[in-house]
Amino acid sequence: MPTIAVFDSGFGGLTVLRALLPLIPGAHFLYLGDTARLPYGAKSRQTVARYAVSSAEFLLAQHAEMLVVACNTASALALEELKTALPIPVIGVIEPGVRAAASLAPTASPHPGSASVLILATAATVQSHAYALACAALNLNAYEKACPLLVPLVEEGWIDHPVTAEVLRIYLAEALAEAPNVTTLVLGCTHYPLLQPLIERTLAERKHPMQIVDSATATAQAAAKLIQTPASGGAETTCSFFATDSVEKFQRLGSAFLGQALASVELIDLGG
Amino acid sequence: MPTIAVFDSGFGGLTVLRALLPLIPGAHFLYLGDTARLPYGAKSRQTVARYAVSSAEFLLAQHAEMLVVACNTASALALEELKTALPIPVIGVIEPGVRAAASLAPTASPHPGSASVLILATAATVQSHAYALACAALNLNAYEKACPLLVPLVEEGWIDHPVTAEVLRIYLAEALAEAPNVTTLVLGCTHYPLLQPLIERTLAERKHPMQIVDSATATAQAAAKLIQTPASGGAETTCSFFATDSVEKFQRLGSAFLGQALASVELIDLGG
Repeated sequence: MPTIAVFDSGFGGLTVLRALLPLIPGAHFLYLGDTARLPYGAKSRQTVARYAVSSAEFLLAQHAEMLVVACNTASALALEELKTALPIPVIGVIEPGVRAAASLAPTASPHPGSASVLILATAATVQSHAYALACAALNLNAYEKACPLLVPLVEEGWIDHPVTAEVLRIYLAEALAEAPNVTTLVLGCTHYPLLQPLIERTLAERKHPMQIVDSATATAQAAAKLIQTPASGGAETTCSFFATDSVEKFQRLGSAFLGQALASVELIDLGG
Repeated sequence: MPTIAVFDSGFGGLTVLRALLPLIPGAHFLYLGDTARLPYGAKSRQTVARYAVSSAEFLLAQHAEMLVVACNTASALALEELKTALPIPVIGVIEPGVRAAASLAPTASPHPGSASVLILATAATVQSHAYALACAALNLNAYEKACPLLVPLVEEGWIDHPVTAEVLRIYLAEALAEAPNVTTLVLGCTHYPLLQPLIERTLAERKHPMQIVDSATATAQAAAKLIQTPASGGAETTCSFFATDSVEKFQRLGSAFLGQALASVELIDLGG
């Protein structure tokens, strides 16, 4: 059975692993959270690429046969560097998420202000315009909105909290003022699926319901298709977890993202 | 004239440099923001110590004669490692801040719930209990409150914003419920001085005014005393700025902390 590596700057990518587990039964999964150097979302392309490649090289040394980049920022800023550096298939979260959006949203209209897809993401992902470019390739107009406070709010545990609701109201009001005709929303950061109920409530308040694309699910489906796994023959699915900082925090917060307890997490040092 | 190095994980420590400039005229200042690896505030002691020592070694190679650790988290978690690793005087922000608080607050009472000093800080600083220990050494009872959202809110630029006001209301209500008798508040993170007006307003709303200690000022005074600088003889004060990531963001956000534009910032690579 294949060894599949899933990589993120933190534990948000566990939402991708969670979606992968039932799709590739019997596989061995490696998960690396580069927690010593997170967050990637406010850093430069050069720095994110350096961090992502060194993380991927560790996973390759652990015999990974495929790499799932379960981090929107790393997918936006470093996917080409990763594909160049690694001799195994590499899949990011952006293209699967955009393909899922394309199946739902109307294609581009030439009128200004006519974006049909709204992307919520970190500052670095938005600055890269990776989503807008991937959307344009599928003839979709996208509006990208940076939401720098959402990751800290999720990490504070304020998932269903009045302050988070107010921050979402502000971000969504700003986005909908610029892009009033969007009908599909892409959660462009692996932390955001935990906020989906609150996002849906905020959109309902504004009487602007949208179809929501969680790229974790779309990415897991794309990865499963790529690996073309044979029947598992009943082999047990196994997971090994690695983090570059504080294993205790990783285990505590990670279980909310994985939807189950993390057996054990090994602390590793990638230098720096 | 002396070469004085000021180090922080980001640009918050520029508030310390700002306070230092008028106190040591004619000195050459080096400022390093380890922005590629920030924030330190949610990371482990081992990781923060490794980052701080590698940053300090760079500054030593630039002929620093004194190191001011203008980062509460690094001061809390790595001051001893820095003192051991460096052959020059090293001063952190915690002891000067606590000494300033001690000059204002009543000394300890043996009753429970009798803390007289409230420390607002990052999660890592609070977990280290560096402030409580430094207070206890001066016979002060301190209550430490972790405020993980304040740094992201300041970096979002929401300095005077209803959401930040609401977050402060929540954090201060939680702290004052546990420590109702505090009379002195220490801003235990170099980002927090930018929130001082909003903190004062929130305390006024609660009819719980407090004396506020900004450890940036206290630290600058302690550093100036330590260096015992000769009269400058009219030599010009000079500053060199270094960052490990995105020089553009450093220049843009840094000027709010320094209170003046940053001439030029040099990008350096500390590895990792």
